Amino acid sequence: MRAVDIIEKKRDGHPLTEEEIRFFIQGYTNGDIPDYQASAFTMAVYFQGMNEEETAIMTDAMMHSGETIDLSAIQGVKVDKHSTGGVGDKTSLAVGPLVAACGAKLAKMSGRGLGHTGGTLDKLESIPGFNISLTSEQFIQQVNDIGLAIIGQTTSIVPADKKLYALRDVTATVESIPLIASSIMSKKLAAGTDAILLDVKFGSGAFMKTQERARELAREMVKIGKNLGRDTRATLTDMDQPLGLAVGNALEVKEAIATLQGKGPHDFVELCIGASALLLTQAKLVDSVEEGRKKVEAAIADGSGLAKLRAMVEAQGGDPTYIDHPEKFPLASRIVPIYAPRAGYIKRIDSLAIGISAMKLGAGREKMTDTIDMSAGIMLTKKVGDAVEANEVIAYCHTNKENVDDVFAEVQQAFEITSEKVAYPPIIHEVIS
Amino acid sequence: MRAVDIIEKKRDGHPLTEEEIRFFIQGYTNGDIPDYQASAFTMAVYFQGMNEEETAIMTDAMMHSGETIDLSAIQGVKVDKHSTGGVGDKTSLAVGPLVAACGAKLAKMSGRGLGHTGGTLDKLESIPGFNISLTSEQFIQQVNDIGLAIIGQTTSIVPADKKLYALRDVTATVESIPLIASSIMSKKLAAGTDAILLDVKFGSGAFMKTQERARELAREMVKIGKNLGRDTRATLTDMDQPLGLAVGNALEVKEAIATLQGKGPHDFVELCIGASALLLTQAKLVDSVEEGRKKVEAAIADGSGLAKLRAMVEAQGGDPTYIDHPEKFPLASRIVPIYAPRAGYIKRIDSLAIGISAMKLGAGREKMTDTIDMSAGIMLTKKVGDAVEANEVIAYCHTNKENVDDVFAEVQQAFEITSEKVAYPPIIHEVIS
Repeated sequence: MRAVDIIEKKRDGHPLTEEEIRFFIQGYTNGDIPDYQASAFTMAVYFQGMNEEETAIMTDAMMHSGETIDLSAIQGVKVDKHSTGGVGDKTSLAVGPLVAACGAKLAKMSGRGLGHTGGTLDKLESIPGFNISLTSEQFIQQVNDIGLAIIGQTTSIVPADKKLYALRDVTATVESIPLIASSIMSKKLAAGTDAILLDVKFGSGAFMKTQERARELAREMVKIGKNLGRDTRATLTDMDQPLGLAVGNALEVKEAIATLQGKGPHDFVELCIGASALLLTQAKLVDSVEEGRKKVEAAIADGSGLAKLRAMVEAQGGDPTYIDHPEKFPLASRIVPIYAPRAGYIKRIDSLAIGISAMKLGAGREKMTDTIDMSAGIMLTKKVGDAVEANEVIAYCHTNKENVDDVFAEVQQAFEITSEKVAYPPIIHEVIS
Repeated sequence: MRAVDIIEKKRDGHPLTEEEIRFFIQGYTNGDIPDYQASAFTMAVYFQGMNEEETAIMTDAMMHSGETIDLSAIQGVKVDKHSTGGVGDKTSLAVGPLVAACGAKLAKMSGRGLGHTGGTLDKLESIPGFNISLTSEQFIQQVNDIGLAIIGQTTSIVPADKKLYALRDVTATVESIPLIASSIMSKKLAAGTDAILLDVKFGSGAFMKTQERARELAREMVKIGKNLGRDTRATLTDMDQPLGLAVGNALEVKEAIATLQGKGPHDFVELCIGASALLLTQAKLVDSVEEGRKKVEAAIADGSGLAKLRAMVEAQGGDPTYIDHPEKFPLASRIVPIYAPRAGYIKRIDSLAIGISAMKLGAGREKMTDTIDMSAGIMLTKKVGDAVEANEVIAYCHTNKENVDDVFAEVQQAFEITSEKVAYPPIIHEVIS
């Protein structure tokens, strides 16, 4: 079997056999197949796609390219959530504690941010001392003890994806549904939970620009998960504006804390309650989403969700006083207001532009080796549907950088203001199961 | 400017700017852009194509990636011919001497064979002592003296194509018209002749499987050449059976000699006369193709074409007694007849199968590092249109290998025999100018 023949077969639109897909993924993982053949292959997949069976085999081959985690020592139904990445997406920081407070076991391996999207690990590391590297034993112990742990993906998990994702990123082959689906699902399946909730974003700040594409990706992933015996569901959520008001690492942690205190912004609260309720049904702790919502709302009202976040921070070596006193998070040296250029209603807030601006203010990385300024970011004061006066503050830029006036202008331009009244958009558009 | 953005732009079907194409080709040539980005790029070009302007810029960027040859020291119109590669294609060995005998100056840089197609350099090297490496001065001197030289492409010519072609070969991105056109034309233009005749093959043994695709490639290349002020024309010729009767290096040299002695097989003779006549019109030595044909036929009849081959061999250090006495070429140890399985008419001889079989008998290379057995190959005794009896010999396999019975079977299966009478097919189907 030769890699070039497999590339040609895919290029010509023929489905690949199980043997061919496994040969390619194994060969690429162990270095027998070079990057230049893998990138031609991924570009051929970009154009020709993969059918359901090929995508399932691809996922399985990637999943088994490295270690898989055995979570059987954890009692109860183990759940995981994953977001395809957005701007201001701190959902795991609130959903994890909320479902744990309601009795679920959330065992999550997370990632770092790149480009305009943030990463849960980076956000957690804005809490002094927080340790994202636990051993498997520590991880399992913590989930058993407090129902919740969020750690970095170990290097031994899905090495095929690590290589392939880095390659796709520099060869313009990221935006392919079978490649995205197999990348995400191989990691989720290797991580060993019983149930998986996927949050597939769509809109300007997401990989998937339209709801249709998001639905296609969600269905693909749900099928893969179900075929391998995992309760897999997906929400399709709006990324045509940033999620919540905070974009930037410490700013987002503070917003998650506020949300657990019952003071979160409307869209983010709604997503947290909806996603948590779904996870509780998947964990078989409730009989309906409605019952789940009530339990989650109670966990906000009685402070048990916030207590779980505090417990996780403490268990992972972080300073829990930052949860009790979020004003301890250092602020950036410059907090610059951005004004509405005219009166009207906010029609759209370009998430991609906000994400890139936040990165330029210091909150994100352009390259994986860049360092992050935990205090930097953007706080919106207005969301889609809100009325504004001319020269009213619509956002604050938090930064320690000088000479970023052009970024301030970009943030202002990210807001589209119209004369007609604009309805508040829903956050969860669809649930796929 | 970033390579990944250029790949993405092409992937999404947008035409690239001159600046982007030159950035990519220069970056790839000097090593700033890695193979894995170049292969993703060529796969994107495979799917999205390039318009006429992009292809012209690509050709020019490749041509100027290295040295270009100045042939101005050669008197008269300098001509070159190029074949897109076929099975049994020894045309240059006869056309070169014929046009030189008629007063043209043929200054040709040629290549080696790979896979099922042979290479002119390999064929010439079956003549003991023949040297394909001349200095520029020697090359120019020889063309001035005898009107003819065929040498290997120097390493300093079009380095971009050397890298890119090797990459395309292992990433299934060979069969792209803009990539083939820019690859061929960058080398032909860098080689510095005034006029270029392209022989674009189509059929099972050719890159282009159909006449339509061959026409498309030919038109693309003719346009590129003309835009840069070179008299460029193309023939579309049949590769649905091997050219002539001989396939294999020394066997083909002997067939070229026989052709120059007036004893060549019909289709090959017709191609040589047709192509030579066109080249003479391009060299402005005759006023019409008809006049050209007469001159070429005379050069066969009076032996002046053969004398030019002898002169070239001698000038390049080869033993000219092999031209006078082609029986000196050593024969393979095994010459195995292949029989017609039934009576009828030959309808088709699968060139690809014959080319691959000849390679397996020792006549070609699977990898560039393989060595060639100069005596190995296949001699057809029947061509398309010929009548055969059951068990009549249709070919002889020449080989020094044992255990190649499966190859003999493949050669037999390459002949399609039908009950109905089959017309002799034309060899030159079209001329594009």
